[in-house]
Amino acid sequence: MTGDAPDFSQRLAERAAQVETVLEGILDPHPQKGEIARPAHLLAAMRHGVLNGGKRLRPFLVLETAELTGADSEAALRVAAALECVHCYSLIHDDLPAMDNDDLRRGLPTVHVAFDDATAILAGDTLLTIAFEIITAPQTPADDSRKTALVLSLARAAGIGGMAGGQALDLAAETTTPDEAGIITLQAMKTGALLRFACEAGAILGETSEEDRECLIRFGEAIGLAFQLADDLLDVTSDSDHMGKATGKDAERGKATLVGLHGQPWARRQLSGLVEEANALLDRFGDRALILRIAARFIAERDR
Amino acid sequence: MTGDAPDFSQRLAERAAQVETVLEGILDPHPQKGEIARPAHLLAAMRHGVLNGGKRLRPFLVLETAELTGADSEAALRVAAALECVHCYSLIHDDLPAMDNDDLRRGLPTVHVAFDDATAILAGDTLLTIAFEIITAPQTPADDSRKTALVLSLARAAGIGGMAGGQALDLAAETTTPDEAGIITLQAMKTGALLRFACEAGAILGETSEEDRECLIRFGEAIGLAFQLADDLLDVTSDSDHMGKATGKDAERGKATLVGLHGQPWARRQLSGLVEEANALLDRFGDRALILRIAARFIAERDR
Repeated sequence: MTGDAPDFSQRLAERAAQVETVLEGILDPHPQKGEIARPAHLLAAMRHGVLNGGKRLRPFLVLETAELTGADSEAALRVAAALECVHCYSLIHDDLPAMDNDDLRRGLPTVHVAFDDATAILAGDTLLTIAFEIITAPQTPADDSRKTALVLSLARAAGIGGMAGGQALDLAAETTTPDEAGIITLQAMKTGALLRFACEAGAILGETSEEDRECLIRFGEAIGLAFQLADDLLDVTSDSDHMGKATGKDAERGKATLVGLHGQPWARRQLSGLVEEANALLDRFGDRALILRIAARFIAERDR
Repeated sequence: MTGDAPDFSQRLAERAAQVETVLEGILDPHPQKGEIARPAHLLAAMRHGVLNGGKRLRPFLVLETAELTGADSEAALRVAAALECVHCYSLIHDDLPAMDNDDLRRGLPTVHVAFDDATAILAGDTLLTIAFEIITAPQTPADDSRKTALVLSLARAAGIGGMAGGQALDLAAETTTPDEAGIITLQAMKTGALLRFACEAGAILGETSEEDRECLIRFGEAIGLAFQLADDLLDVTSDSDHMGKATGKDAERGKATLVGLHGQPWARRQLSGLVEEANALLDRFGDRALILRIAARFIAERDR
């Protein structure tokens, strides 16, 4: 990382702390007056899957794109928290024995290890569900037009044409090796869709012009590709102690990645190109987009 | 059943056929022009879990309450289809080996048997997700205010304070026997929440008075209780060939039910009382609510 890194890490940590507070409030184990009691065991599993020191990269992108577009910051925080719930649901289900069978996540036992498979399935289900409740709840200060657009876009990003569909393709890729186009589609769906939504959310909340929205969406797509390439590189070059999760799994499972197909030097060149592309998409926003430029480079160059 | 039954069964079948058409369109295996390709295997699993000849009781209630309130019938059909996707997602996940471990559903292999556990988990996830897409999509002819209210209410009905929370309590009840109040809470959440939403949906779509909406909600709660009591009775009195799913499982698992606690004659008296209560809640709607009155009796007296 360059000289910008300390500032960026601090900004990322500040944003994460803001989102953490909102998530803590939403997943509060002490029910509010008049609230239906929530099964304590299930709530504990949801909390284990969410409140675990994640980087909160997706929330960060929601908050920064929302600030760029002049959107209400309280509304952005709620949408950021909703998106993080969807991300964490996907991790909980992906980690299940029936799926990727991972025991370790961010250095902690995964939800099905700390609880059990049934509770992990339900914790994922309820985190996905609560995301749509968070967006549409009266506490989210946005009009119904924005809320409807956010729900629609998030549901598309998370569903069969997005993240969950990408996970299905990923499972299939363990037995039938996809070609390059197949890998790109898979990754755009599995990882890219939520990062794309994160950046689109800022545009929806700020009710930008169609052109600005389109540029933020394409920025999200570019950093989504960069994120996945960096992830594939880290799986090859890092170790599990450093990452807090299993590494070397792609090769072990014979899973096709672009890094495996084209090699590390190619991947690093691609990453540079994607960062340039992401930067170019932000030109229209001028200096106000500086933090997003730094974020793009961070995503491409991250070491965990 | 009484002399009304043939008419009612026909009406239920007509409504089911209408919803089937909408669901077929939503889960169309041939992607529309410009649409992102959806993983075929996952889509097939979703179709297996949804297009299986269910009674479509929840959609029926959405459509009939919507007709009662003068709501747009196209919008009601879309919401009915969304609700059925949520119901079917819950069945797919509940049937998993990690949960209730059922191999048979409506006389067919459950999704995890016909496909595999991972695909069943993802099919449930994507059906839950698509429900929120269906409601908020431009094809649903309702304004953003109604869409927002529907998403919020459905998310609450399906989440930790509703259906999924009820399933968590139900799993816990296999090891720790709940008392009567515990059983009632469990059932109101697990089964009642979606039936309640079905009836509330008609009120939201029709933008009724607060009083009418409250009565339809309470009607939904009454038939929810009746539905569960009838279900518990059938588990004791029927056989699996007739039901198309396993029976006698409550007793086998030592699961506490109100029927087990108070006996069959008590349960039948309760059912009569619930049907009376449901009818009284419909008085304000006069003759237009006739089909809902018949539905309440059908739910209480059904034999499968």
